Amino acid sequence: MPIGGAKGGADFDPKGRSDTEIMRFCQSFMTELHNYIGQYTDVPAGDIGVGGREIGWLFGQYKRMRNSYESGVLTGKGTSWGGSQVRTEATGYGLVYFTQEILKHRGLDFDGQTAVVSGAGNVAIYSVEKIQQLGGEVVAMSDSTGFVYDPEGIDLAAMLEVKLERRGRIVDYCALVPRAEFHEQRHRIWTVPCDVALPCATQNELDEVAAETLVKNGVKVVAEGANMPCTPEAIRVFRAAGVAFGPGKAANAGGVATSALEMQQNASRDSWTFEYTEERLATIMKRIHQRCIGTAAEYGYAGDYLMGANIAGFRKVADAMLALGII
Amino acid sequence: MPIGGAKGGADFDPKGRSDTEIMRFCQSFMTELHNYIGQYTDVPAGDIGVGGREIGWLFGQYKRMRNSYESGVLTGKGTSWGGSQVRTEATGYGLVYFTQEILKHRGLDFDGQTAVVSGAGNVAIYSVEKIQQLGGEVVAMSDSTGFVYDPEGIDLAAMLEVKLERRGRIVDYCALVPRAEFHEQRHRIWTVPCDVALPCATQNELDEVAAETLVKNGVKVVAEGANMPCTPEAIRVFRAAGVAFGPGKAANAGGVATSALEMQQNASRDSWTFEYTEERLATIMKRIHQRCIGTAAEYGYAGDYLMGANIAGFRKVADAMLALGII
Amino acid sequence: MPIGGAKGGADFDPKGRSDTEIMRFCQSFMTELHNYIGQYTDVPAGDIGVGGREIGWLFGQYKRMRNSYESGVLTGKGTSWGGSQVRTEATGYGLVYFTQEILKHRGLDFDGQTAVVSGAGNVAIYSVEKIQQLGGEVVAMSDSTGFVYDPEGIDLAAMLEVKLERRGRIVDYCALVPRAEFHEQRHRIWTVPCDVALPCATQNELDEVAAETLVKNGVKVVAEGANMPCTPEAIRVFRAAGVAFGPGKAANAGGVATSALEMQQNASRDSWTFEYTEERLATIMKRIHQRCIGTAAEYGYAGDYLMGANIAGFRKVADAMLALGII
Amino acid sequence: MPIGGAKGGADFDPKGRSDTEIMRFCQSFMTELHNYIGQYTDVPAGDIGVGGREIGWLFGQYKRMRNSYESGVLTGKGTSWGGSQVRTEATGYGLVYFTQEILKHRGLDFDGQTAVVSGAGNVAIYSVEKIQQLGGEVVAMSDSTGFVYDPEGIDLAAMLEVKLERRGRIVDYCALVPRAEFHEQRHRIWTVPCDVALPCATQNELDEVAAETLVKNGVKVVAEGANMPCTPEAIRVFRAAGVAFGPGKAANAGGVATSALEMQQNASRDSWTFEYTEERLATIMKRIHQRCIGTAAEYGYAGDYLMGANIAGFRKVADAMLALGII
Amino acid sequence: MPIGGAKGGADFDPKGRSDTEIMRFCQSFMTELHNYIGQYTDVPAGDIGVGGREIGWLFGQYKRMRNSYESGVLTGKGTSWGGSQVRTEATGYGLVYFTQEILKHRGLDFDGQTAVVSGAGNVAIYSVEKIQQLGGEVVAMSDSTGFVYDPEGIDLAAMLEVKLERRGRIVDYCALVPRAEFHEQRHRIWTVPCDVALPCATQNELDEVAAETLVKNGVKVVAEGANMPCTPEAIRVFRAAGVAFGPGKAANAGGVATSALEMQQNASRDSWTFEYTEERLATIMKRIHQRCIGTAAEYGYAGDYLMGANIAGFRKVADAMLALGII
Amino acid sequence: MPIGGAKGGADFDPKGRSDTEIMRFCQSFMTELHNYIGQYTDVPAGDIGVGGREIGWLFGQYKRMRNSYESGVLTGKGTSWGGSQVRTEATGYGLVYFTQEILKHRGLDFDGQTAVVSGAGNVAIYSVEKIQQLGGEVVAMSDSTGFVYDPEGIDLAAMLEVKLERRGRIVDYCALVPRAEFHEQRHRIWTVPCDVALPCATQNELDEVAAETLVKNGVKVVAEGANMPCTPEAIRVFRAAGVAFGPGKAANAGGVATSALEMQQNASRDSWTFEYTEERLATIMKRIHQRCIGTAAEYGYAGDYLMGANIAGFRKVADAMLALGII
Repeated sequence: MPIGGAKGGADFDPKGRSDTEIMRFCQSFMTELHNYIGQYTDVPAGDIGVGGREIGWLFGQYKRMRNSYESGVLTGKGTSWGGSQVRTEATGYGLVYFTQEILKHRGLDFDGQTAVVSGAGNVAIYSVEKIQQLGGEVVAMSDSTGFVYDPEGIDLAAMLEVKLERRGRIVDYCALVPRAEFHEQRHRIWTVPCDVALPCATQNELDEVAAETLVKNGVKVVAEGANMPCTPEAIRVFRAAGVAFGPGKAANAGGVATSALEMQQNASRDSWTFEYTEERLATIMKRIHQRCIGTAAEYGYAGDYLMGANIAGFRKVADAMLALGII
Repeated sequence: MPIGGAKGGADFDPKGRSDTEIMRFCQSFMTELHNYIGQYTDVPAGDIGVGGREIGWLFGQYKRMRNSYESGVLTGKGTSWGGSQVRTEATGYGLVYFTQEILKHRGLDFDGQTAVVSGAGNVAIYSVEKIQQLGGEVVAMSDSTGFVYDPEGIDLAAMLEVKLERRGRIVDYCALVPRAEFHEQRHRIWTVPCDVALPCATQNELDEVAAETLVKNGVKVVAEGANMPCTPEAIRVFRAAGVAFGPGKAANAGGVATSALEMQQNASRDSWTFEYTEERLATIMKRIHQRCIGTAAEYGYAGDYLMGANIAGFRKVADAMLALGII
Repeated sequence: MPIGGAKGGADFDPKGRSDTEIMRFCQSFMTELHNYIGQYTDVPAGDIGVGGREIGWLFGQYKRMRNSYESGVLTGKGTSWGGSQVRTEATGYGLVYFTQEILKHRGLDFDGQTAVVSGAGNVAIYSVEKIQQLGGEVVAMSDSTGFVYDPEGIDLAAMLEVKLERRGRIVDYCALVPRAEFHEQRHRIWTVPCDVALPCATQNELDEVAAETLVKNGVKVVAEGANMPCTPEAIRVFRAAGVAFGPGKAANAGGVATSALEMQQNASRDSWTFEYTEERLATIMKRIHQRCIGTAAEYGYAGDYLMGANIAGFRKVADAMLALGII
Repeated sequence: MPIGGAKGGADFDPKGRSDTEIMRFCQSFMTELHNYIGQYTDVPAGDIGVGGREIGWLFGQYKRMRNSYESGVLTGKGTSWGGSQVRTEATGYGLVYFTQEILKHRGLDFDGQTAVVSGAGNVAIYSVEKIQQLGGEVVAMSDSTGFVYDPEGIDLAAMLEVKLERRGRIVDYCALVPRAEFHEQRHRIWTVPCDVALPCATQNELDEVAAETLVKNGVKVVAEGANMPCTPEAIRVFRAAGVAFGPGKAANAGGVATSALEMQQNASRDSWTFEYTEERLATIMKRIHQRCIGTAAEYGYAGDYLMGANIAGFRKVADAMLALGII
Repeated sequence: MPIGGAKGGADFDPKGRSDTEIMRFCQSFMTELHNYIGQYTDVPAGDIGVGGREIGWLFGQYKRMRNSYESGVLTGKGTSWGGSQVRTEATGYGLVYFTQEILKHRGLDFDGQTAVVSGAGNVAIYSVEKIQQLGGEVVAMSDSTGFVYDPEGIDLAAMLEVKLERRGRIVDYCALVPRAEFHEQRHRIWTVPCDVALPCATQNELDEVAAETLVKNGVKVVAEGANMPCTPEAIRVFRAAGVAFGPGKAANAGGVATSALEMQQNASRDSWTFEYTEERLATIMKRIHQRCIGTAAEYGYAGDYLMGANIAGFRKVADAMLALGII
Repeated sequence: MPIGGAKGGADFDPKGRSDTEIMRFCQSFMTELHNYIGQYTDVPAGDIGVGGREIGWLFGQYKRMRNSYESGVLTGKGTSWGGSQVRTEATGYGLVYFTQEILKHRGLDFDGQTAVVSGAGNVAIYSVEKIQQLGGEVVAMSDSTGFVYDPEGIDLAAMLEVKLERRGRIVDYCALVPRAEFHEQRHRIWTVPCDVALPCATQNELDEVAAETLVKNGVKVVAEGANMPCTPEAIRVFRAAGVAFGPGKAANAGGVATSALEMQQNASRDSWTFEYTEERLATIMKRIHQRCIGTAAEYGYAGDYLMGANIAGFRKVADAMLALGII
């Protein structure tokens, strides 16, 4: 039962540093940090500027300090030394599994639904992939330079070539897929009519005006893949219109859930397949949906995922604090 | 391989104490105890006066002392912080699974069998539930004030209402289920003819006279859900008559088996479903049956579960002692 | 991710010592060794002169030293206190699973293949058993005194009686199975024509001449069950002739793989069935085959298992060293 | 070599709390703190609101947490369970020993010197006691309500009765010692002519004007018993006038020095007499004086204790950092 | 501050065992015990059947278990590996130092005093040695077979030859020292007139009648070297008569005090000379005397060592319990 | 009781490396080593290529790894962070103290003795200083380029200038001290007539011929300051001639003795003065002398320091092994 979640960091700026300098910083950082963490104490994961490479250097130093190969002390490890499959895909896949639950709860499924997914990073790309696998059609994606509208559905292979291989601008997609249209104002992606809208780009990217447009165009579900992409005003619009709104704290939990799965694998010294890991992820997202919708109903806010997530989260922490005693 | 089992406690009497006093006692107790236990050393569980609430306070203090979230150090935890499903049902379900194995071994199953289950606590109630799921009929249950005979089979929903919700006397069952008869002398429950008798109430509740009556009425299997409910004389009667007798040390092992399952979940940082946990429990009860019956046969006491359980238990400890070396 | 593998030992000669002296040696050895090992540090297993009995004495002392039942600190434990099923069979079964993968890779299976298996110890015997289960026919086995040729296929029950029960010479097989022929020069077992040759007896038992004979007789696959049974010259002959050659470091990894499985069971406090353990072993052997053949192809040595195993092994260690940082 | 010194605390306000609440707070505080301190790691001592009583509760909880009686983990303990003698007197005595060294360095001693000591707490009272033992005469003391001037020298017994026993105002001293005069403006104590001025009351109690008056009246030495009682301007006046100025970081180090002596006693499981402890304290104060005056001279600031103390302190930390390596 | 004192042991009877068996028992005992002791936790010392040899075996095993040479974990070690000088003499010397303090308190010293010392073991012999060094005369000693009266004072060299070298009966002393008289009834040793009586033989050896005789003969001081040699009635007689009575809990504390000195030496990795150790012992005995007599006076029992020792002991434990907090 | 002494090292060659590279090597070395050492386990000191600077880097890393300031884990530390005074002088001073004991044992003292001291490093220089303080006259010293003979006694200030400040050749001494003669063949230093000869330069520097010359010239004492400077043949000559011979294992133990003193200071968190440390060193050297001469006499080799040292050393280890038990 991992309770909590805390943030910390260092004021070391890796820009302009050699690989060896970054490695030594990681080692020095862990030399001090190792006193305060542990596989049963606190388990850090990477974040901005701390990817698999840095996790490796941190873990290597932890191992040296403790003379002990405790894989579970860090997550985000490389797959050949304790890391989990599905890590790259986790947030995107998880978002779509969560959205699928919302649809099911309303008697729908992805089959035949039109979706708009903002962003073109890992979250957006793997959301699109999963939507397509589930029978949905994604007609628009964006990056910081604009958005493309592809009336026949995004050609994911082309998008991967543009964004991951060439690391180009999204306008280049139109060169590969001439049927697509490019638009410069990326926030206008929300004017594209859709059943499902998944903001996966950045904070505050979907405001009140965009929300009203989506509602007017008949959107059924909005679920946040980014952290807080919808403004409070936009959320109010969705709730007023009866649009199902999946808040990020629930909808994009796939990444941190995969950290927990990585810790499970480490605890049992196992190494799961991609398929099994994804199945576990899907189960977790279903349980989160169930917890949100159930708690919301229990407290008189039937159908309100935001209220459900907030109440369920608070209650989990509060119950645990009471159960483990006051000090 | 958990070997052993030891009992310990404190002379603190929670009666008349406030919740905070009890909590502080638990914390002080663990402040000293934590030096002697551990997830790989000794793992206490609750018992009289130590339920889930006290386990929480004990675990919370252990966590603080060690600065380490080692779930496996205690069992009987709450399900939201490491505890196991099926804990409440474990002894009752396990008893019936064990009994089912005895029946199977004799070419029978529960379908169409008539059972008498003494007691009305968790063991009895969940025994009845499982017997009914497996097709058997339970015609009598008891509490400290008497027993009820219900010729059409105990209506478990009614019994739950009387005993768990109202916390009333068993005679109230007759008010809800008019067809049932109430009798004041609870030990006379054993005069009710049955194929399967499961004493789940209290120590020494089934004596020689009761055993003779059961035998005369054609009982096929007697299995102990309580601790030592059958007197030595009663057991002698069953063995002489060729009635299969499942001793408590094997038949009611479902509770402690679930502690082991809880430790497994904790070790792998997993959280099993009710169904999976029950399936694991059923497998364990089958293995215990197999171990008893096999060992009994191996040592020339074919069919004698008591002998089988005693020899198998002794041998397991003795083998381990030899294997791990004399000091 | 267990990286590495190291060898160590003691100059204590158990010959002529009483059981108690050997036990005390094991205890003294562990009294010092326990500072340097651990379930997350280094995990020894038995080897020459260190069987299950000695592992028990070592483990018992470790447990006493640490006051902690960390099963994962040693492998090769007894099955009743943390050991794994399939340990005895592991190398033989694994060898045949690996060989089966080689055959499949060439579009074949064991059905109808004729095999020669040198040796009559655990590796050879359980290789034969598994080949027969998979539909192959083993026509020759050997021990240090010679080899038997059985044109109708080795009768494994008879062989077990001769070698395991009577601990006799292989010539006695012919007394039980009159159709079989005995030959004194054990290295001439390789003159028996076969599709699959599994040298499972001893180092350097299969030399250049034997290899040429096997090739001439149309052998398709040679896989090493013993450690380095084929001389470098023999291996050169097989590679030149296009015979698939499974080097021991890959083909006989079933034993050490089962140690890893034992550690997994210990980590999750579980106890796997024979069937499940064997299935996991088979999966591992398939993965090793895939890793060898894939790596070989990637580096331009398609079909060369020796090259594939060497490169894959080196790369795994090198990658981990880089990932965990230079110190 | 204790390097450093850090401050920390809690926002718990003991005012209005029962003794038991304060005790439980101390225990809870240590339950968390014990992970971060240790006799070889960091050693806290009391400060505002944390006296001997709280140190006892903190230490008791540390002992319980670690199951280990490591006296050296905290200082300021009670003398019957590891504390040091001379703790109450330490700062005052140390201040006078330091001042004595300054006098000696100038070819003087306390004999016949007139001193003014502001304040009436432990620092002031034990400064007066020690000055009198060394032959000096203290003619004025103060508290927050004013100061007394006693032309024949403060009668310490009378002052102790007023301030420690009766906990009264300093004006009451005049009732016991009629020859003394009371003045209401406490900062005017510095108008009393003296050879040695020891500000032991509070921060910023001796400003530029007071300093000029002292200089005019021929003061030879000023040494700080309180923390920063002299304003920067006052210090400039003393330095300009060639008055020896002992800064608090050196002059009032007697208290923290006694913490180090307490740790020494704990380390050697010894219990020193008052006399021996005082002798060690005196030696330390002499060494601090020597270090200040020596360093000042070495760096071209002969006779400047402030410069000497700053440079010596910086150099000690810097040298240690270099010696122990960069990380 | 060592608080407390507890007793424990084992039911292993070393009689009839070989040295190796006893050694192995010690090793096994420590293999379990080491979890519960430590240089800062609890520090055992030898007692009946556990001498320097056994302490060595216990310490050796502790050292192996912990891989750490923590001398302070046991006392009574051999002098070449951490033990203290003066251990053999400690109780006897301490008793006489304590008695000397009683005499001094009454304005007397040992010079010219006549003493009777019962017993002939270490306590008695080293008491006699120290009395003679301090100018007193010992005229009688005893063993279990009787007592000798030597009007010119015991010839210690002769007594040592009889009791330590020859291990003979005390009657043999008369053969070496013809002036001495032997008496068979050892309890009649108390009829010998004396100023100082030190019962150092055994429990209850000095009863009411003996006490009355001593009083009648003008005894001034009685101090217990054995554990509880004086009956409660005898003590009442001494107190009624105003004879100074030194109870064993204070008077024979020299042995346990030397354990504390051994721990001090270990803590500081030092090795004290005999002279220095004896001086420390003498200081401790003086402090105990002071504590007894001071506490007795404080509580209104001036001169009553028994009351003083009891109150001081209780208060020390009670104060520490309060100081370290209630749990 | 430090028993033993072991040597270890690394194949890292600091030549041509930057300070930072050497520091990082030290840190990496300790990152692994820290698992195997400890203030109560094994305590390394510097040796070739590992001086105070490297000890600092090693200690700093140990401190970081353990989060614990255990000064006693290494010796040879800087004096400002736990190191001992007299470390540089220890071997030379100790050698002369040992020699003084030899002289005393023969009824002599240094006053008026003529000495020859080979070498011009720390051992030789501080030997000369101490001899001169004790009243002896040193007439010759050497370096690898030759020796100087100064009939009026070496002018130590001049020698220090030549060897420590200028780091020049010994011939330069003659420029400063014109009365001195320079000779090129350094081994001919032993032709200088003397009462006391202290070979402090290098291994095997004093052979049979030199020994015979010394004997012929009337040498009374030879004591080894270097490690094994006298050849076995030379030693035989001295013993045959009745010259007192102090073997290095006893005579030059001053350095390692000071390591033990450093550990004592660390254990008691103390910091001794130069004077006190030297006094402790002198006491140790006297005890070593006493142990050698006493043991030699006890075993029938009166006056034979080599035999005494060997037997005493062996016996100390053997006694400890027996005392602590066989494993």
